[in-house]
Amino acid sequence: MPLNLKIMSQKPALPKGTRDFLPSVMIRREYIFSVIKEVFKKYGYQPIETPAVELLSVLTGKYGEEGDKLIFKILNSGNYLSKRGKALVTAEDLEKGERYMTPVIAEKALRYDLTVPFARFVVMHQNDLNFPFKRYQIQPVWRADRPQKGRYREFYQCDADVVGSDSLISEAEFLAIYDEVLSRLGLTEFTVMLSNRKVLNGFSEVIGAEDKFTSICIAIDKLDKIGEEGVAKELQERGLENSQTEQLFGMITFEGTNEEKLTFLQEKFADSEIGKKGLAEMREVLDLHTYMPKYNAAIDFSLTLARGLDYYTGTIFEVGVDNVKIGSIASGGRYDDLTGVFGKSGLSGVGISFGADRIYDVMQELNLFDEVQRSVTNLLIVNFGSKTLPYALQTLSKLREQGISAEIYPEDVKMKKQFTYADKKEIPFTVILGDEEMEENKYTIKDMASGEQETMDWEELLHRFRK
Amino acid sequence: MPLNLKIMSQKPALPKGTRDFLPSVMIRREYIFSVIKEVFKKYGYQPIETPAVELLSVLTGKYGEEGDKLIFKILNSGNYLSKRGKALVTAEDLEKGERYMTPVIAEKALRYDLTVPFARFVVMHQNDLNFPFKRYQIQPVWRADRPQKGRYREFYQCDADVVGSDSLISEAEFLAIYDEVLSRLGLTEFTVMLSNRKVLNGFSEVIGAEDKFTSICIAIDKLDKIGEEGVAKELQERGLENSQTEQLFGMITFEGTNEEKLTFLQEKFADSEIGKKGLAEMREVLDLHTYMPKYNAAIDFSLTLARGLDYYTGTIFEVGVDNVKIGSIASGGRYDDLTGVFGKSGLSGVGISFGADRIYDVMQELNLFDEVQRSVTNLLIVNFGSKTLPYALQTLSKLREQGISAEIYPEDVKMKKQFTYADKKEIPFTVILGDEEMEENKYTIKDMASGEQETMDWEELLHRFRK
Repeated sequence: MPLNLKIMSQKPALPKGTRDFLPSVMIRREYIFSVIKEVFKKYGYQPIETPAVELLSVLTGKYGEEGDKLIFKILNSGNYLSKRGKALVTAEDLEKGERYMTPVIAEKALRYDLTVPFARFVVMHQNDLNFPFKRYQIQPVWRADRPQKGRYREFYQCDADVVGSDSLISEAEFLAIYDEVLSRLGLTEFTVMLSNRKVLNGFSEVIGAEDKFTSICIAIDKLDKIGEEGVAKELQERGLENSQTEQLFGMITFEGTNEEKLTFLQEKFADSEIGKKGLAEMREVLDLHTYMPKYNAAIDFSLTLARGLDYYTGTIFEVGVDNVKIGSIASGGRYDDLTGVFGKSGLSGVGISFGADRIYDVMQELNLFDEVQRSVTNLLIVNFGSKTLPYALQTLSKLREQGISAEIYPEDVKMKKQFTYADKKEIPFTVILGDEEMEENKYTIKDMASGEQETMDWEELLHRFRK
Repeated sequence: MPLNLKIMSQKPALPKGTRDFLPSVMIRREYIFSVIKEVFKKYGYQPIETPAVELLSVLTGKYGEEGDKLIFKILNSGNYLSKRGKALVTAEDLEKGERYMTPVIAEKALRYDLTVPFARFVVMHQNDLNFPFKRYQIQPVWRADRPQKGRYREFYQCDADVVGSDSLISEAEFLAIYDEVLSRLGLTEFTVMLSNRKVLNGFSEVIGAEDKFTSICIAIDKLDKIGEEGVAKELQERGLENSQTEQLFGMITFEGTNEEKLTFLQEKFADSEIGKKGLAEMREVLDLHTYMPKYNAAIDFSLTLARGLDYYTGTIFEVGVDNVKIGSIASGGRYDDLTGVFGKSGLSGVGISFGADRIYDVMQELNLFDEVQRSVTNLLIVNFGSKTLPYALQTLSKLREQGISAEIYPEDVKMKKQFTYADKKEIPFTVILGDEEMEENKYTIKDMASGEQETMDWEELLHRFRK
């Protein structure tokens, strides 16, 4: 297709809330994604992808009324205002406003998360899938949220889920996956908080407020942000007696080891079957986790974890970094019925999600990228012009044949300019091949960090740079 | 966000022209992408990403009138029909139709290719980029084309470009990149056709039809599809004399080695400066290529290559598979002025693009995926229930600590069901850990392909499965 170069030049810009990723950032982001992928695969999770574009009807109604407003809709292509000469949209329709117009002129939308498309995927491909089905999916999602620091309109989600099994081995393995991913990324002090929505059901039953379960979850979830007083006030507004709130705080503020919490609640939940079920599941997950590989994660049965409005029904997870104020960097949980909305009931699922943008920010703050290679290129061959070019190009080919990432500066310009190029691209070594090197079949390597130069033969060069 | 499970269940579907990728396909696709990426990186190309969503104004006018129609537009979020109580769209506006409406209600769009976003990127980040800037980009693009076999509305492009250098070393390296990528994917018989738009300028000059250059390019480009007669007819319609067409065919049908073609045209182009410039560039690219690593590619100076409507001005490339009828699987070329349309002139660029979907189809047809690992999991540990579960989980942890991809069937069901799971997931080995194995600290491995079982100790197991 032709770039019409004759049209007036325009000042380029990006839609708000979207980002370009330059190489230095991309290399770091890809490093994060590659560690997440490697660990997912090691645990038997298989990759899938779904299209960015879904039918609007598939997404609508799954994220609440507020969520529906934040879905980006795609205008029908072609003549979306009329069909075979007949108007699809009349002046009267226009009067009725966006709520009426949108479904008529926009049948498609950009996905809002990876969970609803995954549910659609499972139902559509149920005969081709191998249950229990373990999948991971790393793709962007789009939300028409008001952009602000750290919140974008296009961002990646990194999800892993198992569907079609009730086994709590999955939960225990997810604890290990959080631990291994974050430890491999260099994090040393972080906490995987876990609880169970049935424990929260237990709290509600014990204080005689089963009917206010969702309100209680939403309120507890805000504890970090608005404190005990704020939560108490909110619970009062939502119709809880002060005595009920006191009783609730008496439970959720209990401090102790995971074992002590289990024992403490076992007593409190004497009359709550669902609460006891939640504790039994918690205990089993923690027991199974004793067999898993362990790195740096602290595992904390958190009595104040609630995961607010989420659709979880069993175990819930949230991961925080101890020494960085940034909120959770990963989360997850079990949901009883992932696919019911698309006509297939009875499939239990459990899944987790890593927040790549926040993990990036944490690693940046803790200087954990220092160890990550900054350039795709290991060696830059300096270009001295036509006389030595054949020797330079032959060397380049030999390096690449050995799998070593190398490039030549494409033009015969001043050496200083070529070194600046190497520095800016963070290429660690340059190769100087002048007349002398060519005659003697040698290679002079300059370490760009120290400035030191060393002349060597091919064997030594290979020995130094081959992985 | 809550999945509202109470709403009526709906039959899930996908927008036409879009696809889900199941694990078996994803693993193969990822293999193709990983080989392309590895080679790009080895040649010093750095990754970038741009957002899927661009301002519509950035894309409009860059792909011709037909292209503009095929851009997917995104409906403005919120109240797109009115702003602060004032109507943005009136009944009169509605009368004016889509051409008027679209820019008012849709300010954003999905990217149509990776080249225009890249041009925008280069201009916006010119002060942060290191020129000559070598980038690769592997991301999906969207086109509202009529879907048909092998043509989708959402598909990946895999591009690499150098911007800001006129050196033909880049062209020679791209020949080597095509060669290495496709050879590593297992292709043995394929041809990289190359030519130069200046050679096509030469043809036009020689036959006295410089003014019909674009028509000539478009017509020649169809030679494969409509044959000589068809092209002759088209050229006649576009105003060429029969004698001119004959003269043109006399040149483009010349057969011989690359060297013979250069010599033949050198004579024909005696009076065409631009034609001779094109030949000189061709010769230099072929000369530089002699220093590059070589695998399976045939390199063919193709006199019938034209790249039709594309915006190239120098070298052009197209790659075809000799024994598979599928059209080109990769292409590329040099363009004089990539970024002029966004206000920065004088930056020459050269780039290539791999067609991942077609490469996938070729590899499928030639059975080249046989060697590619089909599963993310190497070993499935059979679940025999609570008694042996600790031994099974400990084994699983030890395997994963060694970097071996393994999983346990999460539930204690019949062995047959677990073996079926392994077969369907194409897991090559299962691990049977019964009472005996547990007591003796042994591991029974079953080869799922041959059915053979072997009992071994930990050292032997490690030796067999550690990479």
